Amino acid sequence: MYEDRIRNASLRDRVISADEAAAFFQDGMTVGMSGFTRAGDAKEVPLALAERSKRLGRPIRINLWTGASVAEEVDRALTEAGCLARRLPYQSEKLLRDAINRGEVMYLDQHLSLTVEMIRDGQLGNLDIAVIEAVAITEDGGIIPSTSVGNSPTFVKMADKVIIELNYGQPAALEGMHDVYIPIDRPNREPIPILEVGDRIGTPYIPVDMDKVAGIVITNKLDHFSPVSPVDEETEAIAGHLLDFFEHEIRAGRMTDSLHPLQSGIGSVANAVLSGLKKSRFENLEMYSEVLQDSVFELIDSGKLRYASGCSITLSPARAKDVLDRIADYRDKIVLRPQEISNHPGLVRRLGIIAMNTAIEADIYGNVNSTHVMGTKMMNGIGGSGDFARNAYITIFVTKSTAKNGAISSIVPMASHVDHTEHDVDILVTEQGLADLRGLAPRERAQVIIRNCAHPYYRDALMDYYRDALKLGGHTPHVLDQALSWHSRFMKEGSMRIPVVEHR
Amino acid sequence: MYEDRIRNASLRDRVISADEAAAFFQDGMTVGMSGFTRAGDAKEVPLALAERSKRLGRPIRINLWTGASVAEEVDRALTEAGCLARRLPYQSEKLLRDAINRGEVMYLDQHLSLTVEMIRDGQLGNLDIAVIEAVAITEDGGIIPSTSVGNSPTFVKMADKVIIELNYGQPAALEGMHDVYIPIDRPNREPIPILEVGDRIGTPYIPVDMDKVAGIVITNKLDHFSPVSPVDEETEAIAGHLLDFFEHEIRAGRMTDSLHPLQSGIGSVANAVLSGLKKSRFENLEMYSEVLQDSVFELIDSGKLRYASGCSITLSPARAKDVLDRIADYRDKIVLRPQEISNHPGLVRRLGIIAMNTAIEADIYGNVNSTHVMGTKMMNGIGGSGDFARNAYITIFVTKSTAKNGAISSIVPMASHVDHTEHDVDILVTEQGLADLRGLAPRERAQVIIRNCAHPYYRDALMDYYRDALKLGGHTPHVLDQALSWHSRFMKEGSMRIPVVEHR
Repeated sequence: MYEDRIRNASLRDRVISADEAAAFFQDGMTVGMSGFTRAGDAKEVPLALAERSKRLGRPIRINLWTGASVAEEVDRALTEAGCLARRLPYQSEKLLRDAINRGEVMYLDQHLSLTVEMIRDGQLGNLDIAVIEAVAITEDGGIIPSTSVGNSPTFVKMADKVIIELNYGQPAALEGMHDVYIPIDRPNREPIPILEVGDRIGTPYIPVDMDKVAGIVITNKLDHFSPVSPVDEETEAIAGHLLDFFEHEIRAGRMTDSLHPLQSGIGSVANAVLSGLKKSRFENLEMYSEVLQDSVFELIDSGKLRYASGCSITLSPARAKDVLDRIADYRDKIVLRPQEISNHPGLVRRLGIIAMNTAIEADIYGNVNSTHVMGTKMMNGIGGSGDFARNAYITIFVTKSTAKNGAISSIVPMASHVDHTEHDVDILVTEQGLADLRGLAPRERAQVIIRNCAHPYYRDALMDYYRDALKLGGHTPHVLDQALSWHSRFMKEGSMRIPVVEHR
Repeated sequence: MYEDRIRNASLRDRVISADEAAAFFQDGMTVGMSGFTRAGDAKEVPLALAERSKRLGRPIRINLWTGASVAEEVDRALTEAGCLARRLPYQSEKLLRDAINRGEVMYLDQHLSLTVEMIRDGQLGNLDIAVIEAVAITEDGGIIPSTSVGNSPTFVKMADKVIIELNYGQPAALEGMHDVYIPIDRPNREPIPILEVGDRIGTPYIPVDMDKVAGIVITNKLDHFSPVSPVDEETEAIAGHLLDFFEHEIRAGRMTDSLHPLQSGIGSVANAVLSGLKKSRFENLEMYSEVLQDSVFELIDSGKLRYASGCSITLSPARAKDVLDRIADYRDKIVLRPQEISNHPGLVRRLGIIAMNTAIEADIYGNVNSTHVMGTKMMNGIGGSGDFARNAYITIFVTKSTAKNGAISSIVPMASHVDHTEHDVDILVTEQGLADLRGLAPRERAQVIIRNCAHPYYRDALMDYYRDALKLGGHTPHVLDQALSWHSRFMKEGSMRIPVVEHR
């Protein structure tokens, strides 16, 4: 069944049950688990830890580090069992989110490329245990990761103990798709030698000191993927504006039909844009991104996408089986890297990435909030958007112009929380249109954003705010008393709509 | 006098007057001028342009690009003459600042490493004329820059016409100190091959197509440096906290006595910190920074600083002559680079920089405002702080805890403008103390920042705000109605102090 996947025979007697693995965990420990956007996450040990906590009648509280989000059932079970004292660098699970927003879990919302630098530099404390999903273990004990690489190479390097979850339900054919590279410690680091999106610079496995392998847990559970929201009229309009923009850049002589390497956040807009590319005249496209979703495989199948570099493969439940059954066919067109490499700001700069990410809201000057609903409640986290946005060739943020059936305008006078500053945002797109902010001063940005991106319902009110602000002057005019009033109104009245009596 | 500094004899007949050079300028042109932090700026041609505008009775309006700030008299004269339609990427002159804040000059406040990428990519339009200060012109027509490199190499590469201001008042001995390197266009760019702060990878001159040299203007005007604010009790206290922190990091085994390469913003705090290093036990220090100020030369003289890489030499009027007279002695200890290299985020990451920059204000969660007074009025600009902050080994922001004799608290409930997000700020320091934010969630950050950094006068009021915010919950708790009330109060009453009746 699984034995041939443990190619180093001496490791076969380290097979233990998930419960035995869970017994290693003690209160106050720091644990690093594989998993990025619900792909390649540890599946058995965290659930066994939650169970053990329940049996004990008190939670074993840990500090949990992952690549990014893990299966919802894992974060949910650990939250329910009260096991999470601290959590980083990203999550997207409802129960955990609520616990974070109640202040019960201390959450560090980090740039995804930076976590391992801080860990290797000893700035986040000791890592006690790493739990890493593998599709195989090599003759030399190397770990072949599954559908994500994430932060696993550094977790394995730094942890006192390593537990491997050998998953024989994941295709063995994933082997050869990974490229594991850990930059050496600073200040004597060499340049990362990636010159093209497909360059391979490391090993196809995660090297591990075999003495640290405390146990191998066997599983065949599949990744617990979530459905992707279907393309709708608005996401299709956003995609259309973006494709028009790319055409405009080609006509201006700034890009060829192959564009620049693409990075795309996850979600329905990303899917719509990538689907739009499938029907476009662009060709020989390349991706240098984080998450490879359904649409990436469709673009490869259609012959449009030449190569995709990422750090995880996250599919919809509907497409997962088909893609994973044929995964060997993609091996010469896809590479999976550690997230510090897939998201490396120096590589983003060198390769000239087109970065496309989703905003929760943007203000009239182009500051973007990616994380906090109404300035206070964490949604998921900044993820890799900051790794890409500051150094990309072109930085694009997309959002629908309204949310909650129009009760929320995604274009606001002042962002209630800022993750991406005006300095970092080149292009803002909603279904209403596209604002090209390159070369514009804040006063110019405001007019373009209000005109092109705001929903017509909110356009006049935004322009009123801007005109009132202009009377007070400044490089970035604001009426401080009113700047967050739209958010306050929503909190009190359930809508940002301005009552008629107030409206001029 | 100057002839021997034009070593290519065929160029000697291109010497023209500043007035003749100014005649090249036409309304609507884009002009790139040398200059970074008032060092190595074009001195004659911009003033002649202002004069010509006055004579004409109407301004010749240009779009002016520089490295960073230029001599105050230059930006002032151009502002007074109405010549500045647009300006980027940094300034620090009072008249210009006022014009920006009145909306008369469209100002692009950019990350200083990014401007040339956008220019070379054609994203900011055509560059008509470059005006570059030189200490000499080589046999092959290469330009030897003076006290800064800034954006000049790209200006020379991209401009239709090049005007050289040959300045024989600047020391000829600056030759050999520069290292000019322009990364090739993307997406086929090689890694920038700097492995140590002192590595030289380019040419000691700016290559120029001699056919483009439209004129050489002769001058001997010195750089118009500004005095540096002296170290005072508060800046000394800030420096003391930082030095204690470095000791703490050494004890924790995370750094050696040589620390990591240092980057330091300009100003009195930077001077105090670097002066503190002179008296410290640290040794073999290195700098990888933007501006090399007085204190850098003092550190080299004292034997503490092994090597300094920067993009400009900006001295106080009191020290300028002494340092420049001995500049040849520093040639094996200093390199001047283009600002895209001195500030390159990929190199900042690779070299593991300790980044120290100044905040105007920070909020209780560690978001930093570097640019906008009361959220609206531009002070100078973000400069290189964003290039360094996101990718540094440790990112430090410093500010005095109050301004305007205590009427302003630099620690506020919510930053009125965000240039550096909570994700990017590791350490916050005021004269009151140091907040180590690494590994802390926002609710933990708030307590440490209020306790360690806020002025005692404002501490209780900040804690009151935080407690009120906690009642509303959230990952980053805020009372939106009150979040900017401290700034509003200052705008109305001239002070952030809370009247006694309101205070609980």
